[in-house]
Amino acid sequence: MTSFRQEHDAFGPVDIPADRYWGAQTARAAAIFTVGDERFPTVLIQAFGLQKRAAARANRRLGVLDPALADAIEDAAEEVRTGLFDDHFPLTVWQTGSGTQTNMNANEVIANRANERLGQPLGTRAPVHPNDHVNRSQSSNDSFPTVMHLVTALELRDRMRPALLRLGDALHAKAEAFAGVVKIGRTHLMDAVPMSVGQSFDAYARQIEAGLARLDGAMPRLCALPQGGTAVGTGLNAPKGFAAAFCEEAAAIAGLALTPNPSKFEGMGAHDALVEVSGHLNTLAVSLVRIANDIRLLGSGPRAGLGELIIPDDGLTSSIMPGKRNPTIAEVVVQTAFQAMGNHATVTAAGAAGTFELNVAKPVLIHNLLRAIRLLSDAARLFADRMIEGLEVDRDRLAANVEGSLLLATALNPAIGYDRAAAVTRKAMAEGTTPREAAIALGYLTGEDYDGLVRPAEMVSNEEGADWQPPPLRG
Amino acid sequence: MTSFRQEHDAFGPVDIPADRYWGAQTARAAAIFTVGDERFPTVLIQAFGLQKRAAARANRRLGVLDPALADAIEDAAEEVRTGLFDDHFPLTVWQTGSGTQTNMNANEVIANRANERLGQPLGTRAPVHPNDHVNRSQSSNDSFPTVMHLVTALELRDRMRPALLRLGDALHAKAEAFAGVVKIGRTHLMDAVPMSVGQSFDAYARQIEAGLARLDGAMPRLCALPQGGTAVGTGLNAPKGFAAAFCEEAAAIAGLALTPNPSKFEGMGAHDALVEVSGHLNTLAVSLVRIANDIRLLGSGPRAGLGELIIPDDGLTSSIMPGKRNPTIAEVVVQTAFQAMGNHATVTAAGAAGTFELNVAKPVLIHNLLRAIRLLSDAARLFADRMIEGLEVDRDRLAANVEGSLLLATALNPAIGYDRAAAVTRKAMAEGTTPREAAIALGYLTGEDYDGLVRPAEMVSNEEGADWQPPPLRG
Amino acid sequence: MTSFRQEHDAFGPVDIPADRYWGAQTARAAAIFTVGDERFPTVLIQAFGLQKRAAARANRRLGVLDPALADAIEDAAEEVRTGLFDDHFPLTVWQTGSGTQTNMNANEVIANRANERLGQPLGTRAPVHPNDHVNRSQSSNDSFPTVMHLVTALELRDRMRPALLRLGDALHAKAEAFAGVVKIGRTHLMDAVPMSVGQSFDAYARQIEAGLARLDGAMPRLCALPQGGTAVGTGLNAPKGFAAAFCEEAAAIAGLALTPNPSKFEGMGAHDALVEVSGHLNTLAVSLVRIANDIRLLGSGPRAGLGELIIPDDGLTSSIMPGKRNPTIAEVVVQTAFQAMGNHATVTAAGAAGTFELNVAKPVLIHNLLRAIRLLSDAARLFADRMIEGLEVDRDRLAANVEGSLLLATALNPAIGYDRAAAVTRKAMAEGTTPREAAIALGYLTGEDYDGLVRPAEMVSNEEGADWQPPPLRG
Amino acid sequence: MTSFRQEHDAFGPVDIPADRYWGAQTARAAAIFTVGDERFPTVLIQAFGLQKRAAARANRRLGVLDPALADAIEDAAEEVRTGLFDDHFPLTVWQTGSGTQTNMNANEVIANRANERLGQPLGTRAPVHPNDHVNRSQSSNDSFPTVMHLVTALELRDRMRPALLRLGDALHAKAEAFAGVVKIGRTHLMDAVPMSVGQSFDAYARQIEAGLARLDGAMPRLCALPQGGTAVGTGLNAPKGFAAAFCEEAAAIAGLALTPNPSKFEGMGAHDALVEVSGHLNTLAVSLVRIANDIRLLGSGPRAGLGELIIPDDGLTSSIMPGKRNPTIAEVVVQTAFQAMGNHATVTAAGAAGTFELNVAKPVLIHNLLRAIRLLSDAARLFADRMIEGLEVDRDRLAANVEGSLLLATALNPAIGYDRAAAVTRKAMAEGTTPREAAIALGYLTGEDYDGLVRPAEMVSNEEGADWQPPPLRG
Repeated sequence: MTSFRQEHDAFGPVDIPADRYWGAQTARAAAIFTVGDERFPTVLIQAFGLQKRAAARANRRLGVLDPALADAIEDAAEEVRTGLFDDHFPLTVWQTGSGTQTNMNANEVIANRANERLGQPLGTRAPVHPNDHVNRSQSSNDSFPTVMHLVTALELRDRMRPALLRLGDALHAKAEAFAGVVKIGRTHLMDAVPMSVGQSFDAYARQIEAGLARLDGAMPRLCALPQGGTAVGTGLNAPKGFAAAFCEEAAAIAGLALTPNPSKFEGMGAHDALVEVSGHLNTLAVSLVRIANDIRLLGSGPRAGLGELIIPDDGLTSSIMPGKRNPTIAEVVVQTAFQAMGNHATVTAAGAAGTFELNVAKPVLIHNLLRAIRLLSDAARLFADRMIEGLEVDRDRLAANVEGSLLLATALNPAIGYDRAAAVTRKAMAEGTTPREAAIALGYLTGEDYDGLVRPAEMVSNEEGADWQPPPLRG
Repeated sequence: MTSFRQEHDAFGPVDIPADRYWGAQTARAAAIFTVGDERFPTVLIQAFGLQKRAAARANRRLGVLDPALADAIEDAAEEVRTGLFDDHFPLTVWQTGSGTQTNMNANEVIANRANERLGQPLGTRAPVHPNDHVNRSQSSNDSFPTVMHLVTALELRDRMRPALLRLGDALHAKAEAFAGVVKIGRTHLMDAVPMSVGQSFDAYARQIEAGLARLDGAMPRLCALPQGGTAVGTGLNAPKGFAAAFCEEAAAIAGLALTPNPSKFEGMGAHDALVEVSGHLNTLAVSLVRIANDIRLLGSGPRAGLGELIIPDDGLTSSIMPGKRNPTIAEVVVQTAFQAMGNHATVTAAGAAGTFELNVAKPVLIHNLLRAIRLLSDAARLFADRMIEGLEVDRDRLAANVEGSLLLATALNPAIGYDRAAAVTRKAMAEGTTPREAAIALGYLTGEDYDGLVRPAEMVSNEEGADWQPPPLRG
Repeated sequence: MTSFRQEHDAFGPVDIPADRYWGAQTARAAAIFTVGDERFPTVLIQAFGLQKRAAARANRRLGVLDPALADAIEDAAEEVRTGLFDDHFPLTVWQTGSGTQTNMNANEVIANRANERLGQPLGTRAPVHPNDHVNRSQSSNDSFPTVMHLVTALELRDRMRPALLRLGDALHAKAEAFAGVVKIGRTHLMDAVPMSVGQSFDAYARQIEAGLARLDGAMPRLCALPQGGTAVGTGLNAPKGFAAAFCEEAAAIAGLALTPNPSKFEGMGAHDALVEVSGHLNTLAVSLVRIANDIRLLGSGPRAGLGELIIPDDGLTSSIMPGKRNPTIAEVVVQTAFQAMGNHATVTAAGAAGTFELNVAKPVLIHNLLRAIRLLSDAARLFADRMIEGLEVDRDRLAANVEGSLLLATALNPAIGYDRAAAVTRKAMAEGTTPREAAIALGYLTGEDYDGLVRPAEMVSNEEGADWQPPPLRG
Repeated sequence: MTSFRQEHDAFGPVDIPADRYWGAQTARAAAIFTVGDERFPTVLIQAFGLQKRAAARANRRLGVLDPALADAIEDAAEEVRTGLFDDHFPLTVWQTGSGTQTNMNANEVIANRANERLGQPLGTRAPVHPNDHVNRSQSSNDSFPTVMHLVTALELRDRMRPALLRLGDALHAKAEAFAGVVKIGRTHLMDAVPMSVGQSFDAYARQIEAGLARLDGAMPRLCALPQGGTAVGTGLNAPKGFAAAFCEEAAAIAGLALTPNPSKFEGMGAHDALVEVSGHLNTLAVSLVRIANDIRLLGSGPRAGLGELIIPDDGLTSSIMPGKRNPTIAEVVVQTAFQAMGNHATVTAAGAAGTFELNVAKPVLIHNLLRAIRLLSDAARLFADRMIEGLEVDRDRLAANVEGSLLLATALNPAIGYDRAAAVTRKAMAEGTTPREAAIALGYLTGEDYDGLVRPAEMVSNEEGADWQPPPLRG
C-alpha cells in the first residue's frame, strides 16, 4: 500500500506518494496531462541535473544564492545528473509547450532532495524552495530550451558520433576488402559498365562521413544557450552576468564549448538550431535508406535475385518458409530512417510554431529529435556490427554478370563513335549475342580490335588515378 | 537471481528466463534487435491473441488441426487477447519489416502456454508446436498485416470514436450556449463583420464530426483482411476456405464486420488502407490545430490579448511568473497533432516501401499509426474535459469589440455601393472616428439611415435562416 | 508598343494595357506580388467563370440584380468558363491567402467584358460594377473556396477518373494475360514460393481501383460549398436563399451534385475536405511508387538483373551508353508521386493555417492540390499507355527461377513439419543442391513423395479457389 | 505554318520545327513525356551552357577534342549560358530520372548551333556530333548532377544571399528604430513581462542571418562536383585529369570554388548535399513562418486585435469589406514557406531514391530545390520591401498594455518570494485590480516599496547589459 505525504503550492495541498521526490506542481500536472505514455528519455532528465547544477554554481558565484543552499542544490542536482532520480520524473511528453512541468519537476525533486540533505523531511519547501532557490535566476522558458540544447549536444557527441564512426569504419573496411572485385555497375537499375565493388562501399562510407561532418558543423549553434533570458528573454530577475557564468559552469561540467546566445529571445522564441540538426538527421536518414536498400537488393536471392552480396546469417527465419534468410538488419535500418524522416516533419511543424516570445512546442520537438538520434545511432551501430562487417561477395556471380554485359560496347564510343556503338548494342540485344560478336558482324572492328578496346578490368579505375586515354576516333 | 531454461529451434539451443513464455526465435531476436526501446502497444499484442484464437478455430473447423490441440491453443490465445501475457513480448518495434519476430513471439508464447495447459513444462514444443500448430495455415506475412488491420479497427472503434464523440458534444454544447453572443468576426486576423460566438463552435464541432465520418468510411477497407494468403499471397499450406472461416471466427470474437481481402497479394504487399487511415488522422490533426489555435488566441490576455474567451484555470502556472495562467491543454492538443502529422509522413514512406510480394516496413507503419490514434484520442478527450467544457466568454470585451468595428460599414454596400462604403471606412480609420460619423460627414447618409442599415445583432444570422434582404442600391 | 487605359478604384487611378480586361485591383496586385511565376492552372480560372455565372443567375432569380446586368454578367462569365479569357489573369499563386486578388481579377474581367457587351468601353465600371454587381452577394472569402471545391471536383471527375480507369484496365489486362505464368514470389526481396505473374498485376489493379474509390468517397464533402457565407460566414449582404440557389445553378451548369455547406464558417475557415482529398492523392502516390518500383525492378537487366519483365522500348537511350534501354516511364511515375507526397505536406501545413473566420493559405493549398491531380493523372495515363500495355514476360527466365528455388520445401511443412523442412532448406542452401536432393539425402522422403508434395504449378492458386488440401502430418 | 526539318539518331528519322535547335532525342522525348507542364527554370538551362562550355575547354586542354570543334562548341555553349537559347528546351521536368533528355537537349542544341557557326545547316550532326563531341568525356549521369550543383550554388549566391541580406538589414533597422519602445512580452500568447519592441526584431534578424550562415556552410559540399564520373562513376571514356580540368574551367567561368567530388559514385548515386541544402531552406521557412506570423498577429486589429504594429497600406482590400486592410505580404511569406516545406519532403523522398550507381529522381529533386530557393528569395525581398520597411508601432497601445499588465509582479519574486508574488497576481486577476493594489492590500509591500521594485522601463534590458541586481529576499 502506497503511503502519501501532503505538499502545498500556491494553489493548495496535494497528495504525493511518500517515497517520491516530486512536489505539488508535478503531481497536479500528472493528474491533468493524461495523454499518451511517452516519457522523455532519461538523458533529458539527467541534462536537467546538469542545468540546475550549473545554475546553482552561477547563482552562488554571483552572490544571489546563499552558499549553503547552493551547495545542497548542487549536490542534489548532481544526483539527478547521474541518473539516481530518473524514476522521480513521472510526466509524459504531452504537457505545456514550454516544458514548464518538467522544469518544475526538476525544481521540486532537487528542492526536496536538497532539503533532505539539509535534514528536512520531504515536502517542506524550506530552506530550499523550488522556485526561489532551485529555479533562482531562471524560468522554464530559458531552462527548458537550454536543456534541449545540452541534451542534443551530448547525445550527438556521446551516442551518434561513435555510432557513425563505427559504421563509416565498417564501410571503409569493405571498400578496401572489395577494391579489386570487378562488378557490373547499374544505372536506372539496368546493366551499365564495369566498376569495383569497393567503389560502392567507398561512396557509402563518404555519405556517412559527410553526415557526421554536417552534425559537427551544427555544434556551434547548438552550444549557444538561451539560459539567462528568464521569462521572456530580457533576463528579468537574473543577476548581471548570469548567462556567461552559467555557460562557464555548464561547460566545465559537460565538456562542451557552451556560449550564451546573444539573443535570448531568439533562443526561446525559435528553435532553428534544433530544426537544423533535425534536417541533418533527415539527410542522414536519406543516406541510410539508400545504402541499406542497395545492400539488400544486391544481396537478394539466393537464386532468383541479384545475389552479388552474401548477407550474414542471423539465425532468424520465416515462420512459414523454414530456413529462409532475410536481410532483417537492413530492414531495421530503413524503418528507423523512415521514423527519423517523420520525426523531422514533426520537428519542422513544431519549430514553426513559435509565437511572440515563446515557442510552445518544445516537448514534442525535443522528443522527436532525441528519438531520431537514438534510433539512427542504434541502427547505424547494428548495421555495422550485424550486417556490413559480415558481408561477403559472390565472385562467380559477379564475374558472370560482367561477362554477359552488353554495355561494354560503351568503351567503343571513342573509337567508332556513339552511333555505331549503339548499333552494336542493339544488334547484340536483339539477337542475344555478345557485343563483340555484333561488332564484328557489323564490320566495325576485328575481334582483336575489340579485345584491345574493351578490357573490363581496366574500365573500373576512377579516372583520376587511371592511365587510360581514349583512343582516336576512327573515320 | 534469474533462472533459465533451454529451448531449441532449427538453429540450436537458446537460454530463456524460466518464468517467461517466449521461445527460441524470440530470444534470438531480442539479442539481435537492440535498437531503441519502443514497444508495440499492448493492444497490438492482444490483437495477436485474437488472431491466433480465430486461426485455431478456423483450423479446427476445417479439420487441419487436432481438436485437442486447437482447444489448448484457443484457450492460450484468449489469455493473450485479454492481456495476461503482455509482459511476455519483449521485442521492440525495430525488427524485421514483416513483423515476423513478434508473430513468432506470439506463436511461442501460445505454444508454451498451451503445452502447459496440457501438462507439459515450458519449452517442450510438443504436443503443440509454435509453427506447425499455432501458426498452422498462417505465415507472418499474412498474420502480421491481419493484426495491423484488426488492432487499427479496434482502436478506432474503442478509443477514437468515443473520444471524438465526446469532443464533438462538448463543442456543440458551447455552440448552443454561445449562440446568442455577438462578436466581431475576423478574417486575415483583422476585424471584419459581426457573427456569434456559437457559430465558431458549431464549425469546430462539424470539423470533428467530419473527421469521425472519414474514419468510419475507411472501415470497410480496414476490415478486409489478408489472412489466408500465407507466404506470398497464394495461400500455400492453408486449407481451402481458410480465409473465409478465419474472418467469420474473428468477426464473432471482435464484433467487427471482417471480410477476406479478395487479393491477399494486395493486403500483404501494400498497406494502402492503413495509409488512408493515416491520411484521415492527418486531416483530423489539421482540424485540431486550427481549433486549438483559435481558442488559445481568443483566450489570450488577460489584458493585452484578445481576451474574448476565458480559459478554465488548471492550477498550473509559470515557474517564474507566479499566478500566470496558460492555455496548457490547447498546447498539448497542438503538439499531439504535430506528432500525428509527422507519424503520417513516416506511414507514407513506409507504405510506399513495399517491394514484390511483401511490404517490409510493417512494424514502423503500425507503430506510427497506433501512436497517432492514441495521442489524438487522448488529446481530444482532454481537450473536451479540461478546456472546452469550462470555457466562458467575456461579454463586455466582445461587445466593446463589436461597437468599435469599422467594417460594420460593409452593411452599407447594398445601399450606397462598394466605392462609397470604402470611402466611409477609410475616413473613419484615418480619423479615428466611427463609420457612422464618417458616413454622415461624407453626406452619404443621415444617422437614422445608418442606424436602419447597420444593426450588428441582425448581421450575425446565417443567411439560410435570416429574413434580411439587402436594401435597394441608392443612386 | 503597348498602349494603356486608365482605370480607377477606391485607391485612385491605375494604368492597364489597353487590350487587357482586368482592372485596377488586379493591376495593383500584379505590381505588388512579384514572387515566383507559378500561375493557377486555367481550369481554376475557368471554374471562376462557372462560379460567377451561377452567382449571377442566383442573384437574378432572387431579385437582387437587375436582369439586364445579370444577363451581361452571365454571358461574360460563360466566356471565362470556356477559356476565352485565360490570358487576362496575370497574377501568380503568391498573393493574399484568401485568393482575393484572383477573385477581384475575375470580377474585373467579367465587369469589363459585360460592359463591353453592353456597349461601353473597358474601364467604365458601369453599368456593371465589379464589386456591386459581379461580386453581388459574394465575398472572396466564400467565392474563392467555392471555386477551390468546384475545380477540384471537376478535375477529379474529368481528369483523374479517366486516367485511373485507364490504368486499372491496363493492369487488369495484364493480370489476365499473365494469369497462367508461374513465377517465384519474393518476400524481403528474397526468393519465396511460387505464384503467378497475373496475381501481381491483379493486386496492382486493385490498388488503383481502391484509389479511385477513395476519391469518389470524398465527393460529397467536396461538393458541399461555402458560397453564401460572404465575408465571415454569416451571409451578410446576401439575400435569403442565396446559397441554395447558387448550388442549384452551379450544379446545373457543372453536372455536379452540389449542396450548401451547412456551416459556411467551416467551409471558409477550414479546408479539411481538401486536405482529405490530398490525403487520398498521397495514398495513390504510395500505390504508384510501389507498382512502378516493382515493375522496374522486375524489368531490370537485361542480363545482370531480375529480367522477368520486358519493358517496351521507347526509343530513348543513354547519352554515353549507346543502345541502353531504361525504365524511363516508371521513373516519371515515381517522380510525380514524390511530388504529390510533398504537395500533400504543403497542403497539410496550409490546411492547419486557418485562424478565426478565414483560412489564409488558400492559394498555396489549391495550387498544390491541383498540381498533384494533374501530375498523377498524366502519369497514370502515361504509365498505362507507354509501359503497362507493352509489358511482356521472359518465360524462360521465370521458369528457371522457379526451378532453382529452395523454398519450394515450404510445401513440405504440412507433411514433415516445419523443423525438418528447415533442415532440408538449410542443407540445400549450404550444399548448392535442390531441396528435393536434400530431402532424400536426409531420409525424410522418397523422390516420389517429394514430387507428389511439391508441385509448383499448383502452388500458385489462391486458396479461395484451390482444391488443394494440406496432407496429414507424418509422425 | 510551321515548317519542319528531319533529323536522324540511332533510332531513325524525326521531324523537328525548322527554327528550333534541338534534335532527334529531344523531339522523341517531347512526344513521350506528356506529363504536366513544369519546365526547369531558365537558370538551369543556362547552367547547362556553363557545364558544356567548361567541358569543351577541358576536352581541348586534354587533347581529346579537335580545337576547331571545341571552339565552336564553347561559343555555342556560351550562348546557351547567356540565355539566348532558353526557348529551345521544350521538355518538362517529368522525364527520365537521370535528366538524360535535358542533357541530350543541351548536346543537340549546342551541336546544331556549333555546326551552324561552322557553316552547316541544322540537323547535320557533323562536324560536331551531339554525343561524340558536345558530350565528349561526359555522361548525363555526371553532367546532370554537376549542373544541379552548379545551378544551386549560383542561385544561392546570386538570388538568395542578396535577398536574405536585404531582409536581415530591414529587420535590423527596425530593431534599432524600436529599441527604446517598451512593450509587454507574451509567452503562451499570454501577457508576461516587459521588453522592447526592438528586441523582437533583433531576434528575427538573427534568425535570418543564421539561415544565411547555414547555407554558406553547405557551399563546400555543393561545390564538389561529380563531373568526370561519366556512366557509373569510374570515368570510363574520360581522359585522365578531366574532373580536375573541368572544375578549373567551370570555376573560372562561374566564379565559384569548384572541386572534384573525390567519389564520383557518391555524387551520382546520392544527392545528400542537395538534401542538406533543402534542409537549410526548410529551416529558413520555419524562421519565416514564425516571423511573419508574429508580425501579422501583432498588427491585427485595427480595433479588436493586438494592434501594436501598424502594417503599411498596400492599396489592396477586400472584395466585400470596403477599405479593409490585410497583412497580405505576410500571408505570401507564410505560403511560400509552406511550399518550401513541402518541397523539402519531396526532395527528401527523391534523395532517398538512389539505387546502385544512380539516383533516378534528379529532375524532381532539383525542380523542387530551385523552386524553394526562388520562392523564399522573392518572398524575403518582398517582405523586406513591402512590409518590414514600412512597419510602425502604436505607442499608445503598447504603453497601455504595459500598464495593465498583471505579471509585472514577477519583479517582486526576489524581494517577497514566488509564493507571495503568486498571491498578488491571483488577487489582482480575480478582482480586476492592479498588482500594486493587490500587493498593498495583502500587506506585503507599501506603494513605495512596490514602485521601487517594479520599474517596467528597466525590466527590458537584456541581462548582459543591465545594471540591475535582484534585491535581497525579505523574510
